[in-house]
Amino acid sequence: MLVQIDFDSDEAIYQQLCNQIILGIACSQFQEGDNLPSVRELAEDIGINMHTVNKAYAILKQEGYLTLDRRRGAVIAVDTDKYKASEKLMDEMKLVLAQAICKGVSLEEIHEMVDRIFCEIIAENGGRKEKNE
Amino acid sequence: MLVQIDFDSDEAIYQQLCNQIILGIACSQFQEGDNLPSVRELAEDIGINMHTVNKAYAILKQEGYLTLDRRRGAVIAVDTDKYKASEKLMDEMKLVLAQAICKGVSLEEIHEMVDRIFCEIIAENGGRKEKNE
Repeated sequence: MLVQIDFDSDEAIYQQLCNQIILGIACSQFQEGDNLPSVRELAEDIGINMHTVNKAYAILKQEGYLTLDRRRGAVIAVDTDKYKASEKLMDEMKLVLAQAICKGVSLEEIHEMVDRIFCEIIAENGGRKEKNE
Repeated sequence: MLVQIDFDSDEAIYQQLCNQIILGIACSQFQEGDNLPSVRELAEDIGINMHTVNKAYAILKQEGYLTLDRRRGAVIAVDTDKYKASEKLMDEMKLVLAQAICKGVSLEEIHEMVDRIFCEIIAENGGRKEKNE
């Protein structure tokens, strides 16, 4: 599994791990039904504490990206209930937009940024879209 | 100062404080040149540790939202260098979009979300834009 952790980052390691897995699902590096490495395996691979991996998996389960099963371990299973997802998305988008407004980025520039990044993610690994077609 | 901290949230308190101040600047609750409360004052008001406020102010300084002066304290001073801001914005936007893609939110729906939230922020307190006009 390709996970890059920046140990010098201000961002907590469990958060980086969550983000990388979400990005991996978005660009179809991880597909529905895929097994993620076991907690022990991933912790050893990256050289981090097992509790950190456990915390990341628990959050991803809570946010509807995977299921945790005693026998099968962590399995990608995205809950695509848009209404459930939208509150968190709106909150996070609000923060990104607040920063953009403070820094004088225009609404038009934000829309361009959204288009560019959306295409980049989809293109990164063939994209989730292609998989579903 | 209107700051609402959710002590039950998973999000670190210094991060919540940073976010609230950034939102406050975006909607012109705080304007260029405004003094923020002293570290001691804010810590006492919210009922949090002074180190937490210090950490939030230091991050906001580093990200170009305020200056810290021994005599004047924390003063809103936004560095509107778009190029410096854009890398962080792009990273955060990428994460929001990755979540949206995973959850099956379309590009069109994201653009609508951006329009809606952008207008909400600007309208919240008269908006930074109005101030500059």
